[in-house]
Amino acid sequence: MKSPLITLTTDFGESDPFVGIMKGVIAGIAPGVPLVDITHAIPPGDIQRGAIVLWQSVPYFPPGTVFLAVVDPGVGTERKGIILHVRGQIFVGPNNGLFSYLLAEGESVRAWELVNTSLGDLPPSATFHGRDVFAPSAAYAALGVKSTEFGPEHPHLVRLPLPSLEITSPQELRGEILTTDQFGNLLTSLGRFIPTKDGQLQLSPWLEQRLPMVKFSPDKARVLLPNGQSLPFVNTFAHILPGECAALVGSTGLIEIVANRQSAAKILGLERGMAVSVTRH
Amino acid sequence: MKSPLITLTTDFGESDPFVGIMKGVIAGIAPGVPLVDITHAIPPGDIQRGAIVLWQSVPYFPPGTVFLAVVDPGVGTERKGIILHVRGQIFVGPNNGLFSYLLAEGESVRAWELVNTSLGDLPPSATFHGRDVFAPSAAYAALGVKSTEFGPEHPHLVRLPLPSLEITSPQELRGEILTTDQFGNLLTSLGRFIPTKDGQLQLSPWLEQRLPMVKFSPDKARVLLPNGQSLPFVNTFAHILPGECAALVGSTGLIEIVANRQSAAKILGLERGMAVSVTRH
Amino acid sequence: MKSPLITLTTDFGESDPFVGIMKGVIAGIAPGVPLVDITHAIPPGDIQRGAIVLWQSVPYFPPGTVFLAVVDPGVGTERKGIILHVRGQIFVGPNNGLFSYLLAEGESVRAWELVNTSLGDLPPSATFHGRDVFAPSAAYAALGVKSTEFGPEHPHLVRLPLPSLEITSPQELRGEILTTDQFGNLLTSLGRFIPTKDGQLQLSPWLEQRLPMVKFSPDKARVLLPNGQSLPFVNTFAHILPGECAALVGSTGLIEIVANRQSAAKILGLERGMAVSVTRH
Repeated sequence: MKSPLITLTTDFGESDPFVGIMKGVIAGIAPGVPLVDITHAIPPGDIQRGAIVLWQSVPYFPPGTVFLAVVDPGVGTERKGIILHVRGQIFVGPNNGLFSYLLAEGESVRAWELVNTSLGDLPPSATFHGRDVFAPSAAYAALGVKSTEFGPEHPHLVRLPLPSLEITSPQELRGEILTTDQFGNLLTSLGRFIPTKDGQLQLSPWLEQRLPMVKFSPDKARVLLPNGQSLPFVNTFAHILPGECAALVGSTGLIEIVANRQSAAKILGLERGMAVSVTRH
Repeated sequence: MKSPLITLTTDFGESDPFVGIMKGVIAGIAPGVPLVDITHAIPPGDIQRGAIVLWQSVPYFPPGTVFLAVVDPGVGTERKGIILHVRGQIFVGPNNGLFSYLLAEGESVRAWELVNTSLGDLPPSATFHGRDVFAPSAAYAALGVKSTEFGPEHPHLVRLPLPSLEITSPQELRGEILTTDQFGNLLTSLGRFIPTKDGQLQLSPWLEQRLPMVKFSPDKARVLLPNGQSLPFVNTFAHILPGECAALVGSTGLIEIVANRQSAAKILGLERGMAVSVTRH
Repeated sequence: MKSPLITLTTDFGESDPFVGIMKGVIAGIAPGVPLVDITHAIPPGDIQRGAIVLWQSVPYFPPGTVFLAVVDPGVGTERKGIILHVRGQIFVGPNNGLFSYLLAEGESVRAWELVNTSLGDLPPSATFHGRDVFAPSAAYAALGVKSTEFGPEHPHLVRLPLPSLEITSPQELRGEILTTDQFGNLLTSLGRFIPTKDGQLQLSPWLEQRLPMVKFSPDKARVLLPNGQSLPFVNTFAHILPGECAALVGSTGLIEIVANRQSAAKILGLERGMAVSVTRH
């Protein structure tokens, strides 16, 4: 059997040796397993940003990938570690909501608590479970150790509130700004849309659970900002005039508010959590 | 046959999951191919900086390396993707000049347009061809898929203007500042010089196409700055007094303007594109 | 024989291609050897920070790992390169103290000068020995080339002064602040303590050479800051009130001064080199 990938997602930054240390622990247990960094620049303790980043990344990795994720402000307290099996992928990290955007409502998911610390060589420290619990557990999972070896099944899964998204009228879908990327593009919860062959937008199957099918034609839709300003849709960045902003259906199927080689976040002064909506006219 | 490396060079930064997502796509197509990051900190949309970084890096990678590079402000517009074969290496990315410093004038190069998007699983998004076009194309190229499979040969190659470099008198070679590294060292277009056994500087074969052979003895040469200041040559950083700047022949054979554990860029207030020259006296 | 890991630790940052170039050189000599980045964000020229980061990381990597480290303000001067064998690991880099925290006093260590530059393809540049000397040497070491091939044994090893740590009274151990991590936690030289089963702190064997065994019960100990302020011990971050600071025994066995999701360094205005002590009462 081909050995799977392990991906790493943390808030440890790149200036300390913490990520390298986790990789050393993994290499000692599961030598030769390829390691892929998703990002280590989650703002410290920002579980929601970690959840969004994982939700964006997971669909693009091959089946059997092990996602090791550590954004863990409660390290050393009562919060437990977990290992999750969701749609053919494995997730290892703290049970604090970090994986909750990966779980559709009502979806079957198998989860185990990480209590068998004897899988590591030493009792865990109180402050670095990435090294002492999660990295060794991810390495053993990549080697094929059964999840039942880690601890009891059926822990209570901590979940973050889902991003706001509701149909407020036949003409309007209302959501919120989820996050900003390094280009200053604002990712919203509006979607998850996919373009159809006839040029219309259609909610992806992922969202059908939560919303009836809604069709928007970008030509006839606009995004409304908190200050009342409305933005047209464009197909890509290069079609926006300098200094202006517009909306587009981004690469994850969510509506994004963007500019052309400028930061829409700065131009518009918008931040995570602010309400935005899409309307047809 | 040994599987080649894939290197990645982008302006995606390290705080978003974009680079990790490209690696997931590659791992799904070409599992086990080693991945090496060159840098993801190209300033957003700065094609020239990307071209310089690739030009600096390419000679140090083994034959058959696939260079995946994405600095792509025109994503989703008419600009095409390309795959290039140059001196035993393969390059995959947008046809916008990003690879143009790798191409000597008149050099034979084979290039194909990337039009066969069916190599990926889905039609490409309008905004993330790194994920949807370039990463899968690089992965297939690493697996040995023939470039003819990707699309038609002989696209018109977009090229950046070459950095300025001219002999202005028997005593003077004039060029420009190309870029600044993280230490504040200023890389110039002056060169590509190599030291000779008799301690003189000599233009490298790479530049012979453009300039007749010129010999400078560092002892008898100085670099002239835009403000009229002139700098002597030193052999290495540690030979410069605190607060002072000097010139040296850097590790790529180009003249650099540097300080000793300080930023020459800050001390001198110089920026990319400014004219500099080297003179013998 | 299984091919070992090579780790990389430098002050080259992530925005230039220097680290990628070193990896290209390694891949050309030792294809398929896994590479792990420890960090490339050592402040430029900060040998002590490099030494601390290596000291933190080394115990977590498997036997036979090759540690390539380049923090090298003296590149191109008289300072030599070295290859060291310490407790089953191999270290390659400049002989400037970078590896000195790995060496207990009086410990047997084998070291060779790196003079056989013909192991590389070209004479080294004056400014980038990471590419021209250390990366090829690390790659050849990973392939099993004997250290005697690199140069003469028994060079004089440059060592940094060890961090200050002394027993100043039966009740007090005095040390200094070593470094700050990206969360703003302050790592001190106080330790290297390990918790015992009876809840007391005990100096680790590593320190026994320098200090007689000292036992502290965290309940009855406090950390004294330069301004006279004293901090209690906690078990983990989440037990600290917002805006307050405390001490804990960190994941490397050293006492750290920390806050809860805030920067203790900023709250307290403390910096590397300042004196701190731990007292029992």
